[in-house]
Order: sequence, then structure tokens, then C-alpha cells
Amino acid sequence: MKPNEIQTPYLLFLGDAADALAAKVAQGIKHWRADNCVGQLRLPGCDADVGLADMSIADARAAGAQTVVVGVANRGGMIADNWIVVLREALENGMDIAAGLHARLADVPELRDAATAQGRQLFDVRHPTETFAVANGKPRSGKRLLAVGTDCSCGKMYTALAIEKEMRARGMDADFRATGQTGILIAGSGVSIDAVVADFISGAIEAIAPANDPQHWDIVEGQGSLFHASYAGVSTGLLHGAQADALVLCHEPTRTHMRGLPDYPIPELEACIEANIEVAKLTNPRVTVVGAAINTSALSEQEAQQYLDVTAQRLGLPTVDPFRNGVAPIVDALA
Amino acid sequence: MKPNEIQTPYLLFLGDAADALAAKVAQGIKHWRADNCVGQLRLPGCDADVGLADMSIADARAAGAQTVVVGVANRGGMIADNWIVVLREALENGMDIAAGLHARLADVPELRDAATAQGRQLFDVRHPTETFAVANGKPRSGKRLLAVGTDCSCGKMYTALAIEKEMRARGMDADFRATGQTGILIAGSGVSIDAVVADFISGAIEAIAPANDPQHWDIVEGQGSLFHASYAGVSTGLLHGAQADALVLCHEPTRTHMRGLPDYPIPELEACIEANIEVAKLTNPRVTVVGAAINTSALSEQEAQQYLDVTAQRLGLPTVDPFRNGVAPIVDALA
Repeated sequence: MKPNEIQTPYLLFLGDAADALAAKVAQGIKHWRADNCVGQLRLPGCDADVGLADMSIADARAAGAQTVVVGVANRGGMIADNWIVVLREALENGMDIAAGLHARLADVPELRDAATAQGRQLFDVRHPTETFAVANGKPRSGKRLLAVGTDCSCGKMYTALAIEKEMRARGMDADFRATGQTGILIAGSGVSIDAVVADFISGAIEAIAPANDPQHWDIVEGQGSLFHASYAGVSTGLLHGAQADALVLCHEPTRTHMRGLPDYPIPELEACIEANIEVAKLTNPRVTVVGAAINTSALSEQEAQQYLDVTAQRLGLPTVDPFRNGVAPIVDALA
Repeated sequence: MKPNEIQTPYLLFLGDAADALAAKVAQGIKHWRADNCVGQLRLPGCDADVGLADMSIADARAAGAQTVVVGVANRGGMIADNWIVVLREALENGMDIAAGLHARLADVPELRDAATAQGRQLFDVRHPTETFAVANGKPRSGKRLLAVGTDCSCGKMYTALAIEKEMRARGMDADFRATGQTGILIAGSGVSIDAVVADFISGAIEAIAPANDPQHWDIVEGQGSLFHASYAGVSTGLLHGAQADALVLCHEPTRTHMRGLPDYPIPELEACIEANIEVAKLTNPRVTVVGAAINTSALSEQEAQQYLDVTAQRLGLPTVDPFRNGVAPIVDALA
């Protein structure tokens, strides 16, 4: 057991999720790590269902669950009063709790006290507690792929997880490395990179994707965009810490401006590739872009295929929608 | 009085500084803000002297001092036991304390309790306590100059303060904006930008250099370098938050590798200018480089002049050593 690693299997807590979207964290865990999930716990009024067996805390414990993962988010990312009694029961039954909310489990006195009394852990994965070293920039063994983007929230986590899955299906040695809260809950470890102290952005990435076997791939989840006026510092530090051999460019083609910044246009794909290579080569001069991953969920099947064909030709790169097509052409380019 | 603004005038606390270098923070405050200093306090064994009248706490209070500034650093940035009795006396005499050490004044129980009892403030300027908004990237009025660098610790703070001084001497409306602990103690406010949470780097800079009169100049202290593999995320966020109209490139010409990274060469000046313009223009497309500030302290007078002449010709920019020559040619280029 590594420090800060969340113990599996999980019981997914869906609370009183108002709809499927409110339980998207649970859905993601179920989708990517079904083997880690023994069941779901839904409170009265819950309108989400991730397709696992409904269980009480006692059922889940009997089925071997080690951790209750809060897979639901409400407005404001708070811990609702009616969740607390259930979560405390989990602690009293010998399970840990993990959550990626703005509010901290550890700030709820009833949960903090019960965890202390029972010797259980509370994982507030949005709030890093580890201390990291400043990045040393020294070349390290193993291979690394980083998903970068034209913008925030355009499919970087999904793309990275799809590449890990495709690689593992081919018998390649690959590990997804999470840099955001949902990714951490899926992978069981990682760091919420936008929440670390600025001096340690690159150092934290060096820590979560350390030297490895020469043929091993770390598939690192990217964050933000070099073209996002609020978050590009995070993206820059992430590129430097990852020392990526390969970049995959993620893009959502119907977006009209950068997320949260109405006056900032989405960059051209070519400009985004060039800027990411320019930054990444400081710590790995051999870096290349190996593919484009397009989130075409807002397009029809026909529009999507046309966009992918045109973009593949324009960039001269394998270009896929990971959700519609999978990522095999990108992994082909790496193998 | 703005929140988080350290009240002047100051008593500079030199403690038992082993040599002048150990008291360089005090020296910087005295050099740039002599009018804010009523005296210095030296303990037995102190081998530094910044040229102010020696005073006890009571003397300084009688002379109007509002804040004791810890202007000395020892190995490890700790608060020495023999300082505490003096600092507590300052609190009991109605003065605040400000320090830029790794260790926090607020973590010393005797100081924390005395400050609470007396209603005084402890400023640990290396550890931001404000919460900042995420950067909005919206163009704002007023002009801004940012000192950037080929590396860390090559003269960005000195250059920015020299430009502020030259502008004020010409009757221009200018304010130095501090982004590191020494700069904050000199200016009385600012933010230790490398210590904020990564998501808020650019937002913190927008906050400390806000919209201003159209003719007003904020002279923003830069940090790190886009070419520093440990800290470039901070430098990137700083560039975006500053929305600089003008950049000044700072450089130390005898350095053989990036500070702390023996395998990383110092970038060429032209490459450094190009990279900084490329990043800065995201939030201010009109940004230009207006000069180069060279720290020639390791060169002879003749070598220095030769280096400045050759560099001015090579870059086609006003090129000065702010310490030897002042920064008049750079301010000429802005006026």
C-alpha cells in the first residue's frame, strides 16, 4: 500500500443525486474501474443509477468494501447533512471515506471524530496534504504521454483513461496518472495539481509519475490549457514536470470561447500544438505530438466523422473521438 | 489603510546577523525606503549595520515606529529563541511585526498569544493568507511593466524598484508591485506569488496590480523564468496576470547554468525575449520588450561596459546595469 492510496474495493455513494449528471463522478469510477466497485448506496430521492447493486453500509462491508467514495456533487460542493449519518456509519463499520468536494470531510466534526476513534482515513482528494519537493528536471526512465488541450474540460481525462485501457488490452505496461479529483477517485491516487502551492506544480508531477521501467508508459492527465488566461501556469508546470515523450491534443470543436472567458477565442489546433511542443521540449527535447482526440459529442455521427477526417488530414496525425472510436490509431502510433 | 498593508514607519530588526549578507533584507528596505525606517535594532554579536540609528524597542516606539520588520535571515529561515523576547516586547509596546521567513511568526505561541492579547498583527509575508479570485483576463486600464528574467535571482526586484524610483523622480505616477517576500517588506504590500495555490497565480497578480488611471504605471516584480524547469508555471501565470504593456529582460551574464539545475543551460537572450512575448501576448497583444537590465556585478567596470554595448547592439534595445548606470534609458523608451 502506497501512502495516500485509496483502498479498494469501493462502495459508491450516490446520496440524493437529483439526476445522472450529479452522479457523474460515480459514473466515471464505474465506467473505468468496474472491478473496483462492489455496489452503490442511494438515499431516498436519488434519481441517479450507475448500474451497480444497491447496498447498505453493512451489505457493502460484508461484500468486502474498504472505502465509501462520495460519487455525487451538489451545488457548492458541500457535504449535505443527510449524508453525514451514513458516512459515519461507514467509518464505524471499518471503512475509509474518499471525496473530491470543495468542502472537506475532515472539516465535519462528526466525521473527523469518528475517523479518529475508529482509526480510519478521510481522503479529501481536492485538497493535497502531501508535501512535494521542487522539481529537479532530471531526465528519468520510463515513457510518459500527456493529454493536453485547447481548453479546460475538453476530454483530457477521458482520453488518458482510454489510452491506458487500450494499452493494457494490448499487454503494454501502462498507468493512468491522475491530476484532478475525479481522476484520483478513479485511479485511487494522484494529485489535484491546481490545488498545490505554485512552487511545487512541476515537482508534484515528478512525484506522481516517477522513474519507471524503460518500456512502462505513464499516461498523465493534463489540466487547463496554455491558452487559458486563468490557468496556463498550471498547464506549463504540468508539461515541465511530466517530461512527456508524447503529447495528445484534446479539443472540443463546437466551443466558441475559452471556458469562463467570453472574450478569449479557442486557439487554432496548429498553434496549440506548436506552443505545447515549445514548452514541453525544455524538459524533454524528444517530445512529439502523436495524435488528436476530439470530443464530438455535440456533433451528429456524420458531422463527427467529417470533422475527424478533415482534421486528420490537416494535422497529419491520427485523429479520433475516444468515446465514439476508441484510441487504437493513437496507440498504434506509439507501439 | 488597505488590508494586508504593513504600517510604516519601521524599526529594522537585525538580530544577531553574522554578516552583512544575513541582513540583506534590512539593507534592501533601507536602500529603497529609507524614509520608512526610524532605526535599527541589533542584538549582541550582530555583525551587520545598515546605517540607521541603533534603537531599543522603547526608543523606536517613542520615535513613532509602527512595525518591527525582521530584516535578518539565518540558516533555515527559523525564528531564533533569542529574538522572541525582543519581538514580544515590540507587541507589548503596541507595534506589529512583519517577517519573510520560512517559519511563521504566527506559529510561535508566545508571539501569537501576545499579538492576540495586544490586538496587534503578525505579517508572515512568505505565506499568503488572502484568498484570491481566479483570473478573469479582462483588459484593465493603467499601464504595467513586468521584469522578466533568463533565470531566478538575476535582478528582477532591483530592476523594478530602480524603474519605479526613476519614474517617480520624473514626476510619473508609478508603483512597485511586489511578488516576493523582500519586495513585500520593502513596498509594505504584495503577494509571495510562488506560495499561492496554483489555480490563483494569475488571479493574485490581477489583484495586486488592479485597474488604475490610464497614465499610471505598475512596475511588477517578476519571478523565476520561463526557462526554469522548476518554476516556469509561476512565471507563466505571472505574465498572464500582469497583462504587461512593457517587459524588461533581466540577466546575469556569468552564470553557467539555471539556478539549482546544473544540467539546464541559460537561454539565449533572443530566445528568452521571444518566449516571454509569446506568452504575454495572450492577455495583452500590444506587449513589447523595452529594455534589458544586466546584473554585471561579477564583471570589471570595463568588461561590464563592453558587455552592455555589445548586448545593446545585438538586441537593439536600451541595455543597462541598473546598479551601475541606473535605468534612465529604459524609462526614456517608455515616456
